[in-house]
Amino acid sequence: MTDLLIRPATSEDLPAIVAMLADDPLGAVRESPDDLTPYRAALARILADPQQSLVVAERHGRTVGTLQLTLVPGISRRGSTRTIIEGVRVHADERRGGLGTELIRWAIDRSRELGADLVQLTSDATRTDARRFYERLGFVASHVGFKLPL
Amino acid sequence: MTDLLIRPATSEDLPAIVAMLADDPLGAVRESPDDLTPYRAALARILADPQQSLVVAERHGRTVGTLQLTLVPGISRRGSTRTIIEGVRVHADERRGGLGTELIRWAIDRSRELGADLVQLTSDATRTDARRFYERLGFVASHVGFKLPL
Repeated sequence: MTDLLIRPATSEDLPAIVAMLADDPLGAVRESPDDLTPYRAALARILADPQQSLVVAERHGRTVGTLQLTLVPGISRRGSTRTIIEGVRVHADERRGGLGTELIRWAIDRSRELGADLVQLTSDATRTDARRFYERLGFVASHVGFKLPL
Repeated sequence: MTDLLIRPATSEDLPAIVAMLADDPLGAVRESPDDLTPYRAALARILADPQQSLVVAERHGRTVGTLQLTLVPGISRRGSTRTIIEGVRVHADERRGGLGTELIRWAIDRSRELGADLVQLTSDATRTDARRFYERLGFVASHVGFKLPL
């Protein structure tokens, strides 16, 4: 895991980020890597929000991974602050090489720095490998995740 | 469902909000209704964050329900913006009376007003009634929710 840099994403990373989102069984039908317009608008919203951290993993000048971390203050659990991890992707060339673990460990460390009490995320139930992956990192699959498209 | 007002929470609502959080099989061991100090600090963090909406349901001057809605811009799903619902609670006197439905419908309508493409939430897997409740409202239980306490 040498020469790995995890740093804030910029607009120059967008093509690589969207390509990684699309190179995925679920992302293939959800993303539009040939039209970056909606992603540029989304990146502007993310960069304008101090509670968001969109990062990329760079190795030898290539963008090989990404995730988004959101800080959410809350009332429950004695006023706990949470972080939420979304959009975790690893380039096909780097899969099974430990980069996913590095990215999640970065997110956990950053969550501690931000003063969070809890890290949470959801994973599509069809991603059967994800459960073992997150449990190895200490997460507990205690919840059911619901979504409603508008 | 007459005389119901859903409005932003204020510091005066905190005792009622925390009492509702604690009056729950899971909340009973997580909350400290006799010490509001951590909740006051949490409310200040929520009120300082424009992406958060902590609301209460008021009926005849009583605070009878609460939820928190968080707006999260994102890159995936063609730059979709999501809302996340957290901390849904209904006073024991109002349970099975439709107030939970009213609160979630409010959150869905508000999510549309905020320009969100997707509403999501997680529910502890031990809350077996919750699944039917959210599915009736159109949510799909497609995800596994993971948590890591720090």
